Amino acid sequence: MQTRLYSFLGGRTGPWRVSATRVVSGDPLPPAERVEVIQGEARAGTEAAWILRGVTSHERYVTRPERARLVEHQPALGRLEATHAAFIPIRKSPAWWSLAQDERRTVFEARSAHIATGLRYLPAVARRLHHCRDLAPSEPFDFLTWFEFAPADATAFDELLDALRASEEWQFVEREVEVRVVRES
Amino acid sequence: MQTRLYSFLGGRTGPWRVSATRVVSGDPLPPAERVEVIQGEARAGTEAAWILRGVTSHERYVTRPERARLVEHQPALGRLEATHAAFIPIRKSPAWWSLAQDERRTVFEARSAHIATGLRYLPAVARRLHHCRDLAPSEPFDFLTWFEFAPADATAFDELLDALRASEEWQFVEREVEVRVVRES
Repeated sequence: MQTRLYSFLGGRTGPWRVSATRVVSGDPLPPAERVEVIQGEARAGTEAAWILRGVTSHERYVTRPERARLVEHQPALGRLEATHAAFIPIRKSPAWWSLAQDERRTVFEARSAHIATGLRYLPAVARRLHHCRDLAPSEPFDFLTWFEFAPADATAFDELLDALRASEEWQFVEREVEVRVVRES
Repeated sequence: MQTRLYSFLGGRTGPWRVSATRVVSGDPLPPAERVEVIQGEARAGTEAAWILRGVTSHERYVTRPERARLVEHQPALGRLEATHAAFIPIRKSPAWWSLAQDERRTVFEARSAHIATGLRYLPAVARRLHHCRDLAPSEPFDFLTWFEFAPADATAFDELLDALRASEEWQFVEREVEVRVVRES
């Protein structure tokens, strides 16, 4: 069975060099020069400034027609030209998690257009979402998202982040760190 | 921070005596005489025939009006008269998890009336749902549900199980074990 677990390590090694780190809200992460992405668990004793883990999982809000559009346009990770990436861990507030499913969906798409906004940046931006809220009761984040894009699409990616952060959904984000990286191997 | 993790131990000790075990679908669990429910992790080295873990989490399908009705009628666990309980671990099929959110909701409530059926057995049956699908990539079940009720409500509880198992949603259940227990301490 292929594991759905991914570990993100910030430290001194790894193929991705950190070009910028920005604390969008809440506490920062310890500084790191490099990022490594591992499928599965990091080996015991691995030295890192931080290790964050998440699992890929089924979609929580996407409807069938939305998924059809996503599947049609979304690129895979690992494209040769996609040498820029961003690692963005997020935690949402207790107020978000206490909403009912229909209320979360309404904020997520009807009022914040999260899916529609993301679709505008396909196929430029590849993305993989990892869930950590239910991985262990004390995970520091709820979601880890990894994005990859070509240098020429970096401005478009910034626009995507601006649009999402201006949405009603982001009023429920209480911790967010943005780690921008460049592939160097 | 109060942990959302619960461990269910089947073995030779614990306050709940196993009165019957039934394999509804898929593989059985190893036999156990007693069940213990622990908030948090079982201590390392704990002897048990099986240990299953899950986290309480936000609701995945319940709308605000449905939640209002549930909150109004659902009893707490631990009622003195609720000396009968059932532990029912379930795994759903890959076909279920590949449905979009709107399709799962449609099967769950519009076509299977999962919430409406459960509401008919309130306040007799107390229930706590635990999620395990995203706890680790290799968990044997997706959900663990713990039910408590008075002996006089055992027949009603059987009816509830029959109704759910006859629903379209249950066509997506590929493993289900029912462990019935009686409190003896």
